[in-house]
Amino acid sequence: MQVMRVDWYLELKGALEKEAVRSGAEFIRQYKLARGHIKSLGMSADEIEKQLASLKLALPSWAFGAGGTRFFRFPFPGEPSDIFEKIQDASVVNLLTGMAPRVALHYPWDLTSDPASLRKYAGKLGLGFDAINVNTFQDHPEQELSYKFGSLCSSDPLVRKHAVELVLETMDYGKKTGSKDVIVWLGDGSNYPGQMHFRKSFDHYLESLHKIYKHLPSGWTLFLEYKPFEPSFYYTVNFDWGCAYAAACSLGKKAMVLVDLGHHLPGANVEAIVARLLQLDKLGGFHFNDSKYGDDDLTAGSISPYRLFLIMNEIVDAQIERKANKPFLSLMIDQSHNIKDPIEDLLQTCEELAAAYCKALLVDREALCKAQKHGDPVAAERVLKAAFYAPVSGLLSKVRLDKGGARDPVGFYRKIKYREKLTDRRKKEG
Amino acid sequence: MQVMRVDWYLELKGALEKEAVRSGAEFIRQYKLARGHIKSLGMSADEIEKQLASLKLALPSWAFGAGGTRFFRFPFPGEPSDIFEKIQDASVVNLLTGMAPRVALHYPWDLTSDPASLRKYAGKLGLGFDAINVNTFQDHPEQELSYKFGSLCSSDPLVRKHAVELVLETMDYGKKTGSKDVIVWLGDGSNYPGQMHFRKSFDHYLESLHKIYKHLPSGWTLFLEYKPFEPSFYYTVNFDWGCAYAAACSLGKKAMVLVDLGHHLPGANVEAIVARLLQLDKLGGFHFNDSKYGDDDLTAGSISPYRLFLIMNEIVDAQIERKANKPFLSLMIDQSHNIKDPIEDLLQTCEELAAAYCKALLVDREALCKAQKHGDPVAAERVLKAAFYAPVSGLLSKVRLDKGGARDPVGFYRKIKYREKLTDRRKKEG
Amino acid sequence: MQVMRVDWYLELKGALEKEAVRSGAEFIRQYKLARGHIKSLGMSADEIEKQLASLKLALPSWAFGAGGTRFFRFPFPGEPSDIFEKIQDASVVNLLTGMAPRVALHYPWDLTSDPASLRKYAGKLGLGFDAINVNTFQDHPEQELSYKFGSLCSSDPLVRKHAVELVLETMDYGKKTGSKDVIVWLGDGSNYPGQMHFRKSFDHYLESLHKIYKHLPSGWTLFLEYKPFEPSFYYTVNFDWGCAYAAACSLGKKAMVLVDLGHHLPGANVEAIVARLLQLDKLGGFHFNDSKYGDDDLTAGSISPYRLFLIMNEIVDAQIERKANKPFLSLMIDQSHNIKDPIEDLLQTCEELAAAYCKALLVDREALCKAQKHGDPVAAERVLKAAFYAPVSGLLSKVRLDKGGARDPVGFYRKIKYREKLTDRRKKEG
Amino acid sequence: MQVMRVDWYLELKGALEKEAVRSGAEFIRQYKLARGHIKSLGMSADEIEKQLASLKLALPSWAFGAGGTRFFRFPFPGEPSDIFEKIQDASVVNLLTGMAPRVALHYPWDLTSDPASLRKYAGKLGLGFDAINVNTFQDHPEQELSYKFGSLCSSDPLVRKHAVELVLETMDYGKKTGSKDVIVWLGDGSNYPGQMHFRKSFDHYLESLHKIYKHLPSGWTLFLEYKPFEPSFYYTVNFDWGCAYAAACSLGKKAMVLVDLGHHLPGANVEAIVARLLQLDKLGGFHFNDSKYGDDDLTAGSISPYRLFLIMNEIVDAQIERKANKPFLSLMIDQSHNIKDPIEDLLQTCEELAAAYCKALLVDREALCKAQKHGDPVAAERVLKAAFYAPVSGLLSKVRLDKGGARDPVGFYRKIKYREKLTDRRKKEG
Repeated sequence: MQVMRVDWYLELKGALEKEAVRSGAEFIRQYKLARGHIKSLGMSADEIEKQLASLKLALPSWAFGAGGTRFFRFPFPGEPSDIFEKIQDASVVNLLTGMAPRVALHYPWDLTSDPASLRKYAGKLGLGFDAINVNTFQDHPEQELSYKFGSLCSSDPLVRKHAVELVLETMDYGKKTGSKDVIVWLGDGSNYPGQMHFRKSFDHYLESLHKIYKHLPSGWTLFLEYKPFEPSFYYTVNFDWGCAYAAACSLGKKAMVLVDLGHHLPGANVEAIVARLLQLDKLGGFHFNDSKYGDDDLTAGSISPYRLFLIMNEIVDAQIERKANKPFLSLMIDQSHNIKDPIEDLLQTCEELAAAYCKALLVDREALCKAQKHGDPVAAERVLKAAFYAPVSGLLSKVRLDKGGARDPVGFYRKIKYREKLTDRRKKEG
Repeated sequence: MQVMRVDWYLELKGALEKEAVRSGAEFIRQYKLARGHIKSLGMSADEIEKQLASLKLALPSWAFGAGGTRFFRFPFPGEPSDIFEKIQDASVVNLLTGMAPRVALHYPWDLTSDPASLRKYAGKLGLGFDAINVNTFQDHPEQELSYKFGSLCSSDPLVRKHAVELVLETMDYGKKTGSKDVIVWLGDGSNYPGQMHFRKSFDHYLESLHKIYKHLPSGWTLFLEYKPFEPSFYYTVNFDWGCAYAAACSLGKKAMVLVDLGHHLPGANVEAIVARLLQLDKLGGFHFNDSKYGDDDLTAGSISPYRLFLIMNEIVDAQIERKANKPFLSLMIDQSHNIKDPIEDLLQTCEELAAAYCKALLVDREALCKAQKHGDPVAAERVLKAAFYAPVSGLLSKVRLDKGGARDPVGFYRKIKYREKLTDRRKKEG
Repeated sequence: MQVMRVDWYLELKGALEKEAVRSGAEFIRQYKLARGHIKSLGMSADEIEKQLASLKLALPSWAFGAGGTRFFRFPFPGEPSDIFEKIQDASVVNLLTGMAPRVALHYPWDLTSDPASLRKYAGKLGLGFDAINVNTFQDHPEQELSYKFGSLCSSDPLVRKHAVELVLETMDYGKKTGSKDVIVWLGDGSNYPGQMHFRKSFDHYLESLHKIYKHLPSGWTLFLEYKPFEPSFYYTVNFDWGCAYAAACSLGKKAMVLVDLGHHLPGANVEAIVARLLQLDKLGGFHFNDSKYGDDDLTAGSISPYRLFLIMNEIVDAQIERKANKPFLSLMIDQSHNIKDPIEDLLQTCEELAAAYCKALLVDREALCKAQKHGDPVAAERVLKAAFYAPVSGLLSKVRLDKGGARDPVGFYRKIKYREKLTDRRKKEG
Repeated sequence: MQVMRVDWYLELKGALEKEAVRSGAEFIRQYKLARGHIKSLGMSADEIEKQLASLKLALPSWAFGAGGTRFFRFPFPGEPSDIFEKIQDASVVNLLTGMAPRVALHYPWDLTSDPASLRKYAGKLGLGFDAINVNTFQDHPEQELSYKFGSLCSSDPLVRKHAVELVLETMDYGKKTGSKDVIVWLGDGSNYPGQMHFRKSFDHYLESLHKIYKHLPSGWTLFLEYKPFEPSFYYTVNFDWGCAYAAACSLGKKAMVLVDLGHHLPGANVEAIVARLLQLDKLGGFHFNDSKYGDDDLTAGSISPYRLFLIMNEIVDAQIERKANKPFLSLMIDQSHNIKDPIEDLLQTCEELAAAYCKALLVDREALCKAQKHGDPVAAERVLKAAFYAPVSGLLSKVRLDKGGARDPVGFYRKIKYREKLTDRRKKEG
């Protein structure tokens, strides 16, 4: 089975090592600038580097193929055809950035008859597995009962049973690949007033979740992901953080809420929702992306980089309160790469997330706290903006280089023409 | 004190009685049409009439003056100048509609040195008092500490204490006027990122609420009213039903959530939020109005009459489930009469709310349930639309006439030139 | 070629005739009620019937298959497999409603090697062809150049040329089927800041349109359809009516704007946009549907029936001004039938549109005008609401029956189990 | 008349000069960093400095008092009480920033019996006058006819005449103070369906504008400012750029559209609207501010700094195309200082706008163009982000210092306790 080869991986590693040597003067200048800046804030650059080095992002397996809209999907050359090839692509992102060592699977899309091999192969490529996702929003080949009118929340008890079983299967599969969390996002809802009974559908949701929760493997967390609309266009059962929170509370300590940045109504203050869930001890993690209209699934930080920073600021603020010196939340990416090369897009995303995280670490919390106490919004903004515009790219490069990654991941990826090489390789293999 | 006169009230009552006699043929035709229609649905028209007769709405004292925007307020002739005159105007609405026997006060706006007289006078005019509202969103004359940067959620403990005391005072005043509920809506929040600490501000909110809850008079309910924005334009402490729900849970059984229809982000499915709160046993009541953009405070049903019906449908559905044969929720109106005569606007509003409620009673729930079970959105919609377009105006007139009200409240109000008379009277008195 | 058979069509016609005889007492009651109501408004019921009978809607060929979201598409039994079968389904909608005699094609989806046969077959089924739509938002099999980064607005002149040629081809095809209009909606835009140059892309748009306009067949109209987002999630070239209007003006008299009800930002006052375009003499027609969030493509009138009525009110108001006694605009339906049987959904849609149109005809324009002159919003609302709730279903049934349609199209369709029969027939044929 | 004193102004100037000397090492470091960065982009730092020095912003007179919401207004110490005091405050902003030499007046709010003195006094304080604004959204004392139901668009010809005359008066006043532009923003619209006739109201708007345009003083420009909602909550006559554009076209070359950043529906791509108007040669200028929900009138760049940069990018891009080496558009600020000290807020705003402008100048347009040509969104974003995060603060300081301003305007303002001094002075004078 040719996909199990790792020669290309070792080659890429080698190329990175060579490149690192050449990083040179511009890098040094940027690095010194960043360290100097941090020092001028009275902070320890070493400490910031250490914390930055502990940042770990999870890559979604489904993001490595071309995303699309309901109108069309534009394929691209070298697109991975199965989970093994997706894992290969993920390893490239991790290799170049040094901060994406885990992959989130989607079941049954990523089903393979030999999960042990998958796990082993991933390990060779430096990867482990993050939360596993379950797909109850479409009918799978040979599926007996349809999810057309709902899955875990269907008015039909047989469909609910069917969907619960799929989640149990998903967790079984996840155990084999080494996951520790399962994410339940569902499209259940209705397109028209009257179609679905609001209270009954939520009752069914809770009832199904209780069954799943009972079977949750030891040490696992169940993530509940809410969304206001799409694919349902009138009503969604788990439509906002309040619904997810109420459900998580009714389940117990191992049920947590997952915030996908794009799953909100226009104008929602997402950073405040994050803070509220943190405070109520029910925030489990994130699906990072950006959006302007709906669940647009664009590159994190591409539309509202300041908002991304403000969200990271809440994460860091809560870490400090809990005296956690690294993120205690699950930080996953969930984007749809409709027009960009997914590998490039994810390299870019890792940079954006790392930069936002780093800047959040640089917020002068004492000054911020003082401004908040004294009703001084001008001072508070100055504190945040100072951190937001801090020149951190040199530090990010350093942390990446230390881990064997690239100074400029996208630049390196393009320079070595990785996509072209990959396409050739897959053509030959395919 | 001339405002204590009730001669005009008795005169109006007399005029209504005379008018009732003349209701005549068109009314009979409409009434028969409505009853015939209800019978054709296999329902009891008598029963519907009875349930409709039990509908009680509360009128907001603050709605009888001209509302306005931040740009301007256009006054109108005969505007009431104090709470006694507001009560007079409320009594007109109640007299003509027969369904608005309670007034919601706002403290300290409606403070009077002699609440016993107020209560007695209201009684003479056929009115009692509903929930009392507290104003911590502005600084009152002679107020020592400012709410500019928050009240119950301020970062300053002295301001919080001050605001808590205002709420306690409000409840004391409410006891004197016969209220049984207090509504806490606050503008607390921030206009800029960083200005307010998300978690601390909510902590302060909870802490203040706990103090208030401890002093809640026996038999009372504390209503928490959420709102996403305005007057704060970046962050509001109690920004959605999820926040209000979490707060209400942390307080106890006597704390409930209040839904103002206009306090949502664009696209929110308000009827689903209503259902969710009902299901979680934390819905206390409503502030009815309509809106297209933000908290526009327009006449209920003026923009989205179908949405109003769908909300009423949830209320009726929950009543049926609980075997309650009348509304168990607090049904208040909260509108801003910027360009309409407030009395006319409230007469219109009562008609809209009664019609929506009546139509919700006519929903064929068995057929709806069947459609929901069978994944039949077309049938479900047909059930709802049939009820929504049911010809109920004759029945509404009948219920009003039975209570001494007018067949057509707005028509009658205009016919007798009430506003002109009122203006003359107040000019003379003033 | 079995699809060319029309026996099932004649059979269905016969069944309708038999059913009509049985329409009976309830229909008579409703019809009399409607006529009585219209008379009581001082209007001529005959005139309203006549005007209603002149309402003609166009059905979109692409709506007869299952719609879907980017997540999934749930197929249903008896789904049409080509344009001939779609035409069959359209003829059922027209037969039962008597008001949908034209089909809008989509090119190249509906390409057939023998358009003359298609036209002839459609004629046998009582149908003609409406505006033709062109698909430049996806890559077609064997297409040389990709529309991934734009079509008519691409930065690549070869791609633009390619797309222009597709539109010219589309118009050629349309001539063969008897169309008189071509609709250009395109997904051209960008997902990320910087990706597309705003001004250049619009220049390219205009340049391409000018080429198309030059080749517009005599007597034809070019419809420009705008949309704020989707499938592009940051910027769309023709993003609102203002862009479409500016483009149409730059082209000339035969270029008009098409309003798809779902192609607006949250809160847009669509009826006002309709009025503005009417006033500027640049409104060509509509794509009817309903939506709550984005371009949800739900059944017209299913979410906001009052809004649909207000839009129809603008159409009727403009007709009256122009002394047109029937609609002078192109009235097309554009919906995505994700969970409903498309035929049922379109039957329902025709009913909704006819009812809204009929109610708009019943608006007392004199009274409305008077209220507008006197700054009397309460009176104006009463005029509109009276028309909106007018009992018109009997009249709609009458008009349908007169045209050989069904009193209750959805009811009849279900009663004769049309979908089951169709499925059987297609299974046999397939 | 004590307000005519300028001693405090000269004193402030002196303090600034002394402070400049002390700017010192940190400033030098930042300045060198900025210049080095610009050089590394292959651009001329001198040229950028020169262009930055040519940036001129206009301050709105109405922003110097406390803004408020419809709920309340929180006053602050030292609030200016008339236009002379507002001018004083504006001069402080200009002195410290060196880039706000013009004030926009609002008529009749800023009416004074002696405009010649006002102009002279402003001149002494280094200020001139920008566009004059007219207030037809409220009734002024002693006003005979009310704008309650509209002004320029009222259905009452007498009210329209009255409003047109107010605009003519406004222009007369503007001539005396040296304005060259007049801005017409109006609240005209309706709160309820039916209240206002869409087409007639726009006809009235155009008719009134034509009268105004006829009297436009030689060399003047008429700015039309659109807004989707507020203070009207259902329909606004001039509701979007399309309406304003159509109106401006019907008037002629001296009528231009004004874009207020907060006057858009949720999700609007404002930078694309800016580009469209630029392309159609109908963009006259801006009202800068920021917002999250509606017309929140927050500090420019406080919520979405990246969006502000993208808007500036369109301005600079159009300048380059026109070979204009300084802004050819009117750049005004329009904010509501509800909780911040207005002077501080405007100092902050000037910094934000200058930074955004400077960064837009640093965009590598050649690289951007190349990325756009090649369908390379990743490269395009990298170009924009590089400019957005460029370290420009040192350059901004330099330009300010060169003009006699402060290195850090807000810091300096606080350091010298200007607000306290001002309050004392006004107390004594008052």
